[in-house]
Amino acid sequence: MTALYLRARVMTCNGPAPDPLGLVDDGAVLTDGAQVVWVGAAADADAACRALDVVPAERVDLGGRLVTPGLVDCHTHAIFAGDRAAEFAMRARGEGYLEIARAGGGIAATLGPTRGASDATLERLTVDRLMAARATGTTTIEVKSGYDLTVAGELRLLRVIARAGAHAPLAVVPTLLCHVVPPERRADRDDYLHELVTALVPAVAADRLATSVDVYCDDGAFTRDETARILVAARDHGLAVRAHVGQFTDQGAAELAAGLGARSVDHLEQVSAAGIAALAAAGTVAVMLPGACVQLRLPPPPVAALRAAGVPLAVATDLNPGSSYTTSLPLQMWLATTHLAMTVEEAWLGVTRIAARALGLADRGVLAPGARADLVVWNAEHPAAVPYQYGASLVERVITAA
Amino acid sequence: MTALYLRARVMTCNGPAPDPLGLVDDGAVLTDGAQVVWVGAAADADAACRALDVVPAERVDLGGRLVTPGLVDCHTHAIFAGDRAAEFAMRARGEGYLEIARAGGGIAATLGPTRGASDATLERLTVDRLMAARATGTTTIEVKSGYDLTVAGELRLLRVIARAGAHAPLAVVPTLLCHVVPPERRADRDDYLHELVTALVPAVAADRLATSVDVYCDDGAFTRDETARILVAARDHGLAVRAHVGQFTDQGAAELAAGLGARSVDHLEQVSAAGIAALAAAGTVAVMLPGACVQLRLPPPPVAALRAAGVPLAVATDLNPGSSYTTSLPLQMWLATTHLAMTVEEAWLGVTRIAARALGLADRGVLAPGARADLVVWNAEHPAAVPYQYGASLVERVITAA
Repeated sequence: MTALYLRARVMTCNGPAPDPLGLVDDGAVLTDGAQVVWVGAAADADAACRALDVVPAERVDLGGRLVTPGLVDCHTHAIFAGDRAAEFAMRARGEGYLEIARAGGGIAATLGPTRGASDATLERLTVDRLMAARATGTTTIEVKSGYDLTVAGELRLLRVIARAGAHAPLAVVPTLLCHVVPPERRADRDDYLHELVTALVPAVAADRLATSVDVYCDDGAFTRDETARILVAARDHGLAVRAHVGQFTDQGAAELAAGLGARSVDHLEQVSAAGIAALAAAGTVAVMLPGACVQLRLPPPPVAALRAAGVPLAVATDLNPGSSYTTSLPLQMWLATTHLAMTVEEAWLGVTRIAARALGLADRGVLAPGARADLVVWNAEHPAAVPYQYGASLVERVITAA
Repeated sequence: MTALYLRARVMTCNGPAPDPLGLVDDGAVLTDGAQVVWVGAAADADAACRALDVVPAERVDLGGRLVTPGLVDCHTHAIFAGDRAAEFAMRARGEGYLEIARAGGGIAATLGPTRGASDATLERLTVDRLMAARATGTTTIEVKSGYDLTVAGELRLLRVIARAGAHAPLAVVPTLLCHVVPPERRADRDDYLHELVTALVPAVAADRLATSVDVYCDDGAFTRDETARILVAARDHGLAVRAHVGQFTDQGAAELAAGLGARSVDHLEQVSAAGIAALAAAGTVAVMLPGACVQLRLPPPPVAALRAAGVPLAVATDLNPGSSYTTSLPLQMWLATTHLAMTVEEAWLGVTRIAARALGLADRGVLAPGARADLVVWNAEHPAAVPYQYGASLVERVITAA
């Protein structure tokens, strides 16, 4: 159904420098329900409709409100069961990684409940999180597997992610995440790696269960060489590659991932100048995860150096039960513009156009003809209001492509 | 109307050490609508009702959910008009205090719109913020004046705060804040001080427009000597005293305020060992404001040293248009337990019992016979869930005393 949104402060997130947000003060957006058809000044809307031979079925007066592309959350671990509130309390008491692991905490604490949960339970938990994300403006959300870690179990998670996506009114992008070597496979780590590259990655590619493969490369997760093996296998099977890089230690994975043409590298609290240069040369997106950075009390990633090198910056929730149990991108925008010293413009592009780029999607994250008709109407006029009024919901209305 | 809440995980915030949260796993709370009458194990509830000769008009099954005292936000600047989103964007771009002041930012930017707003507008804006706070679990909220700064204007703000409190279903505690010397009085600063102590403070005391007087003591606000003059006048007029202390620079105001028996000192990013010892000796509450700390990129206050000295710690939103535009205490609890390294127990007591103490109120912040019947029911079982699932609303129901 065609709809014309009028009297809107339109932010296209698609403007040329020096105004990349592309603000149109008294603007209008025309959609056919599936795609954006036209964006411009409200005064030109009727002429545009005539030229396009469209009589809008609906005319919506937005009363001067800000309208933006639907938000894109490009990094989540939204599929899991179990609860780690007690572990959160231990961390707050200052107990370290080892005490928490001994008490059954960490990623392993989520494996048991996730493996033990039925498909229906996992789907319900995931849909609940997707709906919470949508309520704060998210219209496309990436969801990684990674809390089962067996070949069959990871394939199951990806299938449940697809089902959750089919049942929730937003777009879901599944990613295969090689998260860590599971506890029961530490003794035959090499066999486990062999299974990942010869069985899991090919099965994901064959059944089109994910569009990209992500590897967690860090102390305690996969080494640089292991990461290379998995990502090369992914690439050879036609899957895009991404990596969790430098959250705790710099393993040289930024250079590795950039060399493999990675769509994104995520976290980056620890990255060398050479790593930053490699990302810039490859055009790889750096995904900032400020909530996890604050929660784990890590030093902020080198935003100024990344900016100076021209590395595109995205911002995501990192929704996960261990270090960032949240679905709200507007709150991450506050953290990005304060704790990480990103600009308001960078934060907006980071949850729209650049986030879409991290997912390899050119058809969203902007308001332009041909883009998906995913829009958010905000109870605000100034783009800065969304991070500024932090912890509040300024969402007036979320519209997702039919 | 009497009500018995059953099958609740009751957190009294009133337990003896080592369990100050006073958790009762299968608990019950009996209220007469105005006050808590009885708290205990659900199994003992019927016997308690018989002993008290009460037949509850309502029996509410909470299904194992956590029930806590209503939250107390002990530091807000909730009455203001105008918007400083553009200033937020300037700060995020890295522009400094002086550029922002030259562009019309800072406290002065809120003076004009607040002075120019009608009583009705200010009341509506304030009530909207109070309702947003209540939706996240706040049942008592302190509101400071401080965005007019003339004698007549500050008295007006305090009257509007009282009216907003009368029209919102939560308890409002008004505070006179001597915020800064207004721009138009910088040339006769001493005359302005004289007005504050001889006209404003006495009028507030005479008309009972506030229960305490707060002074912002810092570089650019009031000096230590000026703060002393105002707080001594407040004390001499029977008002409790508080102070904004050490947000940017240590002016020795912790020692000063403690020496005057201050109920609280707030911010404390910069405080000496002598200041901490003085607070501990006086039993003054230290109010942590983690949102403003993150937003202004200040070093965290010395929580470990305050804890070691035995200074009681509260946590508040600092709701204000310049450095912390938020109404959510649960979100501040996440910041407190991560960025400030407070424990979950400290965060809970900091928004309940200790926050009430900062306001001089013994009848709330706990679930115990005689306390106000202000309760929050949470969609959670573990107390840590509230900070852990940050940015989400886990509030199932807010009950305020009739």
